[in-house]
Amino acid sequence: MIRNRIFEIIEPAKSNDHHSRVFDNTILILIIFNVISVILESFSSIALRFQAQLDIFEIISITIFSIEYLLRIITSNLLYRENDKARAVLKYIYSPMAIIDLFAILPFFIPMILPVDLRFLRILRLTRILRIFKINRYTTSLSMIGRVLKKKKEELIVTLFVTFLLILLAASVMYYVETDIQPDGFPNILASLWWAVATLTTVGYGDVYPLSVLGKILSGIIALLGIGLVALPTGIISSGFTEELENKKQNYNRSAKAYKYKKRKKVLKRK
Amino acid sequence: MIRNRIFEIIEPAKSNDHHSRVFDNTILILIIFNVISVILESFSSIALRFQAQLDIFEIISITIFSIEYLLRIITSNLLYRENDKARAVLKYIYSPMAIIDLFAILPFFIPMILPVDLRFLRILRLTRILRIFKINRYTTSLSMIGRVLKKKKEELIVTLFVTFLLILLAASVMYYVETDIQPDGFPNILASLWWAVATLTTVGYGDVYPLSVLGKILSGIIALLGIGLVALPTGIISSGFTEELENKKQNYNRSAKAYKYKKRKKVLKRK
Amino acid sequence: MIRNRIFEIIEPAKSNDHHSRVFDNTILILIIFNVISVILESFSSIALRFQAQLDIFEIISITIFSIEYLLRIITSNLLYRENDKARAVLKYIYSPMAIIDLFAILPFFIPMILPVDLRFLRILRLTRILRIFKINRYTTSLSMIGRVLKKKKEELIVTLFVTFLLILLAASVMYYVETDIQPDGFPNILASLWWAVATLTTVGYGDVYPLSVLGKILSGIIALLGIGLVALPTGIISSGFTEELENKKQNYNRSAKAYKYKKRKKVLKRK
Amino acid sequence: MIRNRIFEIIEPAKSNDHHSRVFDNTILILIIFNVISVILESFSSIALRFQAQLDIFEIISITIFSIEYLLRIITSNLLYRENDKARAVLKYIYSPMAIIDLFAILPFFIPMILPVDLRFLRILRLTRILRIFKINRYTTSLSMIGRVLKKKKEELIVTLFVTFLLILLAASVMYYVETDIQPDGFPNILASLWWAVATLTTVGYGDVYPLSVLGKILSGIIALLGIGLVALPTGIISSGFTEELENKKQNYNRSAKAYKYKKRKKVLKRK
Repeated sequence: MIRNRIFEIIEPAKSNDHHSRVFDNTILILIIFNVISVILESFSSIALRFQAQLDIFEIISITIFSIEYLLRIITSNLLYRENDKARAVLKYIYSPMAIIDLFAILPFFIPMILPVDLRFLRILRLTRILRIFKINRYTTSLSMIGRVLKKKKEELIVTLFVTFLLILLAASVMYYVETDIQPDGFPNILASLWWAVATLTTVGYGDVYPLSVLGKILSGIIALLGIGLVALPTGIISSGFTEELENKKQNYNRSAKAYKYKKRKKVLKRK
Repeated sequence: MIRNRIFEIIEPAKSNDHHSRVFDNTILILIIFNVISVILESFSSIALRFQAQLDIFEIISITIFSIEYLLRIITSNLLYRENDKARAVLKYIYSPMAIIDLFAILPFFIPMILPVDLRFLRILRLTRILRIFKINRYTTSLSMIGRVLKKKKEELIVTLFVTFLLILLAASVMYYVETDIQPDGFPNILASLWWAVATLTTVGYGDVYPLSVLGKILSGIIALLGIGLVALPTGIISSGFTEELENKKQNYNRSAKAYKYKKRKKVLKRK
Repeated sequence: MIRNRIFEIIEPAKSNDHHSRVFDNTILILIIFNVISVILESFSSIALRFQAQLDIFEIISITIFSIEYLLRIITSNLLYRENDKARAVLKYIYSPMAIIDLFAILPFFIPMILPVDLRFLRILRLTRILRIFKINRYTTSLSMIGRVLKKKKEELIVTLFVTFLLILLAASVMYYVETDIQPDGFPNILASLWWAVATLTTVGYGDVYPLSVLGKILSGIIALLGIGLVALPTGIISSGFTEELENKKQNYNRSAKAYKYKKRKKVLKRK
Repeated sequence: MIRNRIFEIIEPAKSNDHHSRVFDNTILILIIFNVISVILESFSSIALRFQAQLDIFEIISITIFSIEYLLRIITSNLLYRENDKARAVLKYIYSPMAIIDLFAILPFFIPMILPVDLRFLRILRLTRILRIFKINRYTTSLSMIGRVLKKKKEELIVTLFVTFLLILLAASVMYYVETDIQPDGFPNILASLWWAVATLTTVGYGDVYPLSVLGKILSGIIALLGIGLVALPTGIISSGFTEELENKKQNYNRSAKAYKYKKRKKVLKRK
């Protein structure tokens, strides 16, 4: 009985369930405040002065997120009704959203159990930014990206491979041409790759660029011919995203029509 | 009687109304000179030498714009003929174009009424650049942008949200990787966001960029994969704009055809 | 008689006219060597050492181009057969290609007639690079661009106007925000425009960029939202060009078909 | 007999030929390790310490690649069954893939036969990176690019020509405007071309940019108007690639359908 009500509350709210909406908004606001807190903590002056307050906020957040996680596990057999309880729990734990939820709380508990050095502690702190993905439950944006990448997988692999070849070739050529003149800018091919990526994505930071005449000529040709190929994965993701958004709109229209049609049918029946 | 004529004059000119066209061109030229005057005044040497002339020009501009604003209010019930006078005035005052007109003159009068410090006075001066939007009345370009943003609202919100997430994530990761090596470039996540925006929009000023090998590798991957997603709002605005321009053309053609059709009908009738 | 032959020779060669083809190639090669000579002369070391040779080459080029120009004028009534001779000459002189031809030789003769200072002489020398447009006669690429710009005129004006407004607004805001912190980077709105253009076209040289936190936030928002609008003229030109190339292909296919059809008809007739 | 088996093994593996698959994977892994070895060797510290190991790996690679090359030549008449043996060998040697294979091994043998200086030896070492193209045999990505460039040849030539003209013109104008103010940045038109390419591809390293007001205004106009034209080859390559990928998909679907259809026919026949 009570488990049913809890399940209703923790799931994204239906239109007129007041408690459920309060719960959703609480979690959403908590996620946003968590992101803000991570940003604030990165300011060393704020981190020093408000460490106590930030720690308290962290403990509150973790407590709420942990309770949320546990409640979701407890009510998991209401989500997967076709499975028995033990299997539903396992199925839920391995679902993408549950893994995100776990990653949002787990790093907090690790230093309590295992002895960790400062360096590792810091990486653990970084993982807190992943809490932002908890927002996924309340938006379709991120799952849309997933679908786009899946749909365009084949194209992306082909073009990423070509992009990778082109960048590698450009970097190698540039390394052999420039390393004698500027051993600091092009000390090895890996460093040269940095130049190649910055140039072919047209970011062009300007920290490394060819100095020799030959290097400049080659770099100009590479830029003119290569940018088109490197822009391809960009174009593919973009077109995939646009298709997805159009499909969504059409589906929406179709379901809206279907809904209207059903309604009209009912009205006709009554008559 | 005279109010009717004033209304005809201040509205965008019909093809053969000489006075109205003179009025339109005066306002247009005044707007352009106002923009030029703001630019000139930003040169400290010009501001010092020609302060008197610039001030006189400002007073003249304000006078004309104020008279224009008052005339428009007085004749507002000729614009909204279905409303009574008081309601027409109110309706006009709250219309977007009237608000722009008000903002173009109001900042000039504030220091006369309220005591303001120098800093605030300066912001008031900045608002003069907004006078350029008065040009809106004589072009459809800006209202077109408004329509495009409205039409693509849903897509823009979804992609801006994803863009925002991606930039935030990239900035956070980069902060943790680079802050020890270059505390000046990546002192906190907010500063790191500056790097993320400059990179993912491919502007790449080159004031901050990763120095560590890990940072460069991550930055390369972020650049290659992220640029596609960040370019999405750009693509959506572009496609929306193109659609709008095509619709406009088709409407024009259709109305041109309809006009021809009507004309032919008339000719046939006469026969 | 001889005028007819000259006209045949100086016009772009038909498939089996040997002399005409020799003439065309001579002019083409001369244009290319002229461009190379302008580039070489810009190297001060080469300009000093080979001034004599470059001058001789210039005199030879001018002689040939002048003769070409005169021959084209003399034979102009063979180009415009419907006009009498005097009118044909005038019509030819005012045609775009003849103006280009004139500009390719005129600057050489000016210092002979008028006393010019060194500065003006230099600008005259710059005009030599315009000789490259003489190549226009042998390619359709440049006239294609002209057609594209004409076709998309309306769209380009609208978007260039919006682009101009956006750049002006961004520059003004940035000037007021940054001028106190870095009077060298943003001394006036005109200098601020330089930043705005470099940012919104995503070139991002990195010579000026906001330093204040407010400036960076505003700049980030401007970059994210503005790039889409500024990329519009780019997109319009691109799409116009693509359409033009497709039209050209279709026309080619159609005329090829028509040609085949005619041929077949002839064959059938003979039977 | 044995030649037939060798041919089967060295050709890309059919689904259930174990030996052939082992051979393919060996070559693939060797190519990848070769690329890694080239990258590693570019680190001077690694090159010094592990020179011996790298040399041994090089000899092993060359041995395997040489044997592979010889085997392919020996079995070439099984590839071109319609030709007699001598002609098949010649035909194979001049095929693109065989030339790549030869270039992957040849540079190793040159210093054994001819006396070469250190500088030339280094260029020979660079050619090792070309071994990555041996991967071509196992992927369709690279041949796809070839097809795209071939298909869009005409468009690419036209737009590359225009791009070239625009870059040349921009560089020349900028040289005359800026060379007096910054003789280091714009010493000659060739150096000015470097600025033009970096600007019009929007890379914008920021090593050279106009300093004079006139130069900045011209550069702004060039950037705003030119980027569209320079982006054209990029757009053409991108659209060509997308078409190619779609064709490939359709062909795949069609052949899949044809396969199903044949299968069904067979089933029907049996009945």
